[in-house]
Amino acid sequence: MSIPFLLDPRLEQDSLKIIDLTLSECRLINNKNFLWVILIPKKNNLRELIDLDWEDQVALLQEINELSQVLLNLPEINTEKINIATLGNLVSQLHIHVIARNTQDIAWPNPVWGKPILKYTEVEAEKIISSIKTSLEKF
Amino acid sequence: MSIPFLLDPRLEQDSLKIIDLTLSECRLINNKNFLWVILIPKKNNLRELIDLDWEDQVALLQEINELSQVLLNLPEINTEKINIATLGNLVSQLHIHVIARNTQDIAWPNPVWGKPILKYTEVEAEKIISSIKTSLEKF
Repeated sequence: MSIPFLLDPRLEQDSLKIIDLTLSECRLINNKNFLWVILIPKKNNLRELIDLDWEDQVALLQEINELSQVLLNLPEINTEKINIATLGNLVSQLHIHVIARNTQDIAWPNPVWGKPILKYTEVEAEKIISSIKTSLEKF
Repeated sequence: MSIPFLLDPRLEQDSLKIIDLTLSECRLINNKNFLWVILIPKKNNLRELIDLDWEDQVALLQEINELSQVLLNLPEINTEKINIATLGNLVSQLHIHVIARNTQDIAWPNPVWGKPILKYTEVEAEKIISSIKTSLEKF
């Protein structure tokens, strides 16, 4: 019997579930200062990108592509640049940041990490999650 | 006649060439506070990862894998984590950061961007470039 996928408690606390994709769980970072989404491949004991099998890496790249397209075209925001990163210095579980940036956001042109957090209201979160989810389901 | 690949002047100024890979030019960021390498796909007018054809994206993923392996196994340093990112907020030409991190580096556990720069001496740069190049050539 295989062990079910375990999400890191800090990732769980800092984000809200959007949708389960084929490989990854897709979650919204609960910080409305940025439209910031993470993909967490649903396999245990992954730390580095290269810990994933090649086939899964290609599947992850596909999910990054789909999510990038969604964030670039979401009507709610004006995305001028996509930032993609996997760091994992604080939370070791492999997760990929896909962040919609624009020149008016509070961190531009710097990276988003370490910047102030402003949580969504429940209504705001539901709206943006629903919008991203609907767009992702079209792929 | 196709236009030759043009490297952004700021990327050129901030880094030193290591090797031409099949898709990307591989360069060392001239900052010995971190072992920090960038891959620049040798095609013009790329800004987002998804501006690359799918086939080239897969080739880039392969080059990221090889470079990650090299940095994780380089005898000169103790790499504890690889950070991978494509941001492009300051330099729009598509480039991918592959950075060897360890818990003793000056930015840990934060990202490396915006941290102090300490240039390599010519001898130091030649040594590390030669070591990375030799390792990459084995693939």
